[in-house]
Formats: sequence, C-alpha cells, structure tokens
Amino acid sequence: MNIGVLGGGQLGRMLALAGYPLGHDFVFLDPAPEALCGLGSHLVAQPDDARALAELASRVDLVTYEFENVPAAAARTLAERVPVYPSPAALEVSQDRLHEKTLFRSLGIPTGPFAPIDSSETLATAVEAVGTPAVLKTRRLGYDGKGQRVVGGPDELAPAWAALGKVPCLLEGFVRFERELSCLAVRGRDGTVAVYPLVENHHEAGILRRSIAPAPAATDQRQADAASFARRLLERLDYVGVLALELFEVDGGLLANEIAPRVHNSGHWTIEGAETSQFENHVRAITGAPLGSVAPVGVSAMVNLIGGWPDPARLLAIAGAHLHLYGKAPRPGRKVGHVTVRCDEPESLAHGLAAVERIVSEGLPRAT
Amino acid sequence: MNIGVLGGGQLGRMLALAGYPLGHDFVFLDPAPEALCGLGSHLVAQPDDARALAELASRVDLVTYEFENVPAAAARTLAERVPVYPSPAALEVSQDRLHEKTLFRSLGIPTGPFAPIDSSETLATAVEAVGTPAVLKTRRLGYDGKGQRVVGGPDELAPAWAALGKVPCLLEGFVRFERELSCLAVRGRDGTVAVYPLVENHHEAGILRRSIAPAPAATDQRQADAASFARRLLERLDYVGVLALELFEVDGGLLANEIAPRVHNSGHWTIEGAETSQFENHVRAITGAPLGSVAPVGVSAMVNLIGGWPDPARLLAIAGAHLHLYGKAPRPGRKVGHVTVRCDEPESLAHGLAAVERIVSEGLPRAT
Repeated sequence: MNIGVLGGGQLGRMLALAGYPLGHDFVFLDPAPEALCGLGSHLVAQPDDARALAELASRVDLVTYEFENVPAAAARTLAERVPVYPSPAALEVSQDRLHEKTLFRSLGIPTGPFAPIDSSETLATAVEAVGTPAVLKTRRLGYDGKGQRVVGGPDELAPAWAALGKVPCLLEGFVRFERELSCLAVRGRDGTVAVYPLVENHHEAGILRRSIAPAPAATDQRQADAASFARRLLERLDYVGVLALELFEVDGGLLANEIAPRVHNSGHWTIEGAETSQFENHVRAITGAPLGSVAPVGVSAMVNLIGGWPDPARLLAIAGAHLHLYGKAPRPGRKVGHVTVRCDEPESLAHGLAAVERIVSEGLPRAT
Repeated sequence: MNIGVLGGGQLGRMLALAGYPLGHDFVFLDPAPEALCGLGSHLVAQPDDARALAELASRVDLVTYEFENVPAAAARTLAERVPVYPSPAALEVSQDRLHEKTLFRSLGIPTGPFAPIDSSETLATAVEAVGTPAVLKTRRLGYDGKGQRVVGGPDELAPAWAALGKVPCLLEGFVRFERELSCLAVRGRDGTVAVYPLVENHHEAGILRRSIAPAPAATDQRQADAASFARRLLERLDYVGVLALELFEVDGGLLANEIAPRVHNSGHWTIEGAETSQFENHVRAITGAPLGSVAPVGVSAMVNLIGGWPDPARLLAIAGAHLHLYGKAPRPGRKVGHVTVRCDEPESLAHGLAAVERIVSEGLPRAT
C-alpha cells in the first residue's frame, strides 16, 4: 500500500524503515525540505496546505501521522478522502489536556488532581481544588516540557498564567510519584488489542533521556492495570494504531498523565527488544494486517542522543548496543538519535547501559 | 557516510534499511529503473557505464556491491577513485569457479574433486580425475543453478560441454552430502573477524528455498572448522565486509563448495535471529565501525518467496513470523521476498515453519 504520513521526523523515518519490508511505500508531508533524506517521497508543505493535502490524498491508500499537533481540520479534510488512522477524534482528544484528563476520568482511569483555568475567575477555584505545589500547563500545543510553569504557592498562579499568555490552561496537582512509566498499546482495524510490557522512563528538563523495558520490578498488577487503562482508551476512541499512555507510579498504583496518539519515544526499544517493533505494529494495524507479538526479547534500555552524538564507533563497540541516527543536523536540545542496548540478562544490560551513558555524557556533540 | 552500491536488488535494499539507522545514505547503480523504489538515490545505468561509474565515485565515500557479477574492470576503475569493499581481488576470485576452488585448496580447505575443462583434450583427463556422476559448471557467471549440466557417465561430458557453449568449465565430482550448510562471516577494516552460527540450507531446482539457523545438531567441531575456513579466506583476500561460504556436510566433515563476496540469502534470518544482522555488519565493516555481535537470538527459519507471495495477512498471523517483501513484481522463479520465523525454542520454530510452508505452498502467487 501507499501510506501517507503527516510529519517527516524520526518517527516517520522509523515507520518507513519498518514498513518497506511489509511491501509498503511512503509519502511524507513535512515543511522541512531536509526531512527524511532518502526515504520515501516527500511533499514539502505545511500540514494545513490544502493543495498539498489534496495531492497527498490522491497518492496514498491511507494516512497516518507521526506528531500530534497536526491541525485537526487537516486530519478531517483528509479523512473525507482517504482513511486516516488513528481517527481525527483521537488526535483531537490528545491535543487538549482538559479533554484528555476528562476522558481518563470518564473511563475510570485514575489521574492526579486537575482543574481548568480559562479566566481570572477560575484561578482561585482551581488552586483550591488542586492545591500547591502544582504545574500550570497550556491545554494545547505543549510537548517536551514546553508551555508549562511550576506554581509553588497560590500567589504564583496568576503570574504563571500571565507568562503563558492567559491561554486556556490546566492546573495539575504535583504528583509525588515513585517513577514514570509508559504503556505502548496497539489496536488493529478488527479491534484486536496488544499491549507491550511497561516501560520505565527517566526525564531531564522535560525531555525523555532514558527508557528501560520491561520496567524493572513492575508487578503483574501494575501491568494488568496499565493494559486495562490502555484497552479502555483504545476502545472508547475506536482507535487504530499505536497509542502511548504516560503514567506515574505512586504508592497506591498508577495515575494516567497523558496520551500520545502515535508511536512514541519510550517505545523505541521495541525495534530490538520486542518480537515486533511499535513501528511495525503501527503499520500492521493501519493496513489491516494482524498484529505481531509484543513479547519482549530479553531486556532493553534506550538512551536518547540529544543535541548531537558521540563517535558512533565508540557506541557500536558496546556489547548489545544498537545505534539509530535520524539524519538530522545537531542542534541544542534536539533529539538526533538513540541507542538501544538489548541483552538476555539484566546484569549485562546494566553494564552496557552504563557504558553508553558514560560515552554519551562525555562525548562532545558532533556530526558524522 | 555516502555509500555507493553496485546493484539495486533486494540485498541492496536490505543493506540500506540496515544502514540508514547508522547515519549513512545510499546511491545505487542499477540498470532497472524500478529497482529499490523509494530508498536512496538511484543511477539508472549498466555497471560498465564509465560515465555512471565516474558519477557514482564522485558522490560517495566508498563503494560496495550486492551481486558478484560486477565486471571486475568496473570495480577496479572505481577503486582508483574511492575505496571499494570487498576488494576487486575478492570479487574476481568468486567470479571464477576454478580460481575459487584452487584458493580453497591452497588454504587447506577441503573440497570435492574437481578438474578444469578448457579444450576437448581436457575432457578425458577431467573425467578420469573426477569420475562420474559429476556436474559440469561454467567457470564464470553461474548462479542459482544456471550454467550447469549433470553428467551421468563419461559419454555425457562432451555433449554437456557443447550445450554450455564450450566455454571454460569446471567438472565437479558429485558429492554425496548429508546436508548443505553455509557460513556467514564478516571482517572489519581493522582485521577483526566474526563468524555467525552455521546455517542449514535446502535448495530446490538450484534455488535456495529454506534456511534454518543455527543449523540443528551442528557440532562444535563443525562450527570451529567452518569458522576456521572462513577466517583463512577472509585473511588471504584481505577481505572487508560479509562473505558467505557454502559448504557440504559429509560423513567425515565439511567440504567447501563456493563463496559469495557479499551478504547472502542464507543470512537473511540474521535480521531477526542474530544480535546484529548480516546487513548491519556489512555496513559496519565497510565503514570502519566495530563489528556487532553475531550471537543468535533464539532459533530461526527463513523461507524464500519465489515467483509471488501469498496474502501477507496470513503470514503475519503466524507467531514469530516476520515478512520481508522486496518491492519486486512477481515473475516465475524470481525471489520476491522471504519470511523469517524466530522463536525462543526449536519446538515453536518447527510449528511456525510448518505453518509458513503450508501457506507458501498453497498460496497462489499474487501482488499486494
């Protein structure tokens, strides 16, 4: 099939690398001329360019996306012409933190305390409902820690909201979590659901640095809870494709934080560390093929390369290390690649992960 | 790096799929305009087109090849401009069955009986040395069973040679082998050698149908012998990249049959079934990166899709099955894809392999 992808970053690239062996071809729509060098066809246009969207629709059998800030109108326009997976409705929910949290609640999925802020009048009620410390987040267009302000006490809320431009926001209570987890799940066109093992994630400055999978010492109960949450979301949204659910592990269980309606950075380990990668399973799902096994193959750790990368030869010399560069120019704060260490045993994994982290922390960012 | 590849078939495609994540880009030289749709750049030209070769050399950092019938002159011309791996010398040896067998002998690698035929006078001495039944093969340009004639008795040799156009040939004694094995080995630019586990191969009508890896019940002695043969060849040829050595297992040990100076069909299982695939290790080797582990991950079986393919959904529904289509139009006798089943245990592998074989044997060849 010909698959259209809105966005041409590393997620699109890895979708293509997984999809070619299944006999598919790819057309990407991305405004950056240098996106995805060498893979698939590329329409250089903004995702709201009506002519480009019409051309995309005419060239492909279906459309998916690799970033969630696709204008909902664009997704809906496309959906009148070709199947779009996941559905524009799923996209829209994930684009609004209030809708997202409200959906969690309506499905009985626990969350931390939250309250909407859309006027000066709502400031006081929100801070009363949520307490402080809290985090103020814009309802729309936030990712990787952008569009957020920490609110230490009640007095800090009004200035924080002003700093965010007084756009509609959500005040979220500070969750004292033990760790961050994520759950990658996939649903096929026929409604079949498969859920990968829980992943343990480590963020710094709001950006994912490291994932370990399966999450060490995750109980069967936690895995079952996460799978149940993911399944409820997938079914309610009549979702097709891979969904990422970010979670906090707290004393009493799991709290849902947010969803990403796409393949996700915390699932990159599945390329080597699971029987079928999240990218292949997303392609299988949207093309109507049976899902592949989500069983782990040994244990894995993924480290993001941010801003640049060390000498590839040093990374490739580490036992079990697999390098993924995205063909992107180095730039501060930019995800330009990742390294996955896959081993049969947790002991060798710890060893390999330490070696990768040492090199990544030492290494000066560099181009090839 | 920019990597030039002579040939744009499935081996080139899988090299590219393995090489992109390492940060490389690819330029293919192939006369077929439809080769490699969507991957890399493509110079549509014959491999002896001087202008195209010059353009290729100007655009890449090094050159490799994915089929062994590259004109040696083309490889040498390129080698004056850019590094060519494996070296043109290795290519030339593999292009001539007599040179190849003579090389085996000079390195103490056992072979079946053989004798050259280059004139009517040599027919009698050859048949005396080798005996019958035997196989007459053209010294050059044979693959997948082409350019061969079975010789049942001494009288059949002259007609067989005439049928092959009286070109220089090699008469090879019929080897009553127990099974066919192959050994994939890789050598880095720094001389490091790594050898994959032995593979058991099943041919029909001269075309590889099925590979099982690691080869069931292969003794440590057989593995050590094969690794030693491969190492001698790699070192004598100052080889860089992946080399495939085809072997016969006979009562007393291993006999070398032939080499392919490239990634090989009997190594496709390594994509899922080894820690590092043959394609990634070839790319690592030629770019001067450290080699990756060649350890198996569970057990694997690969089945070629020849002439066409069944409904992908049926294959993808099999536990542990991984589909690889090459983007080639179906045509009788043409390799258009393969399926690898990877499992943790031999029992589940047997089950999965049987399911794949059943579908492949039933399924009518079809396009997507």
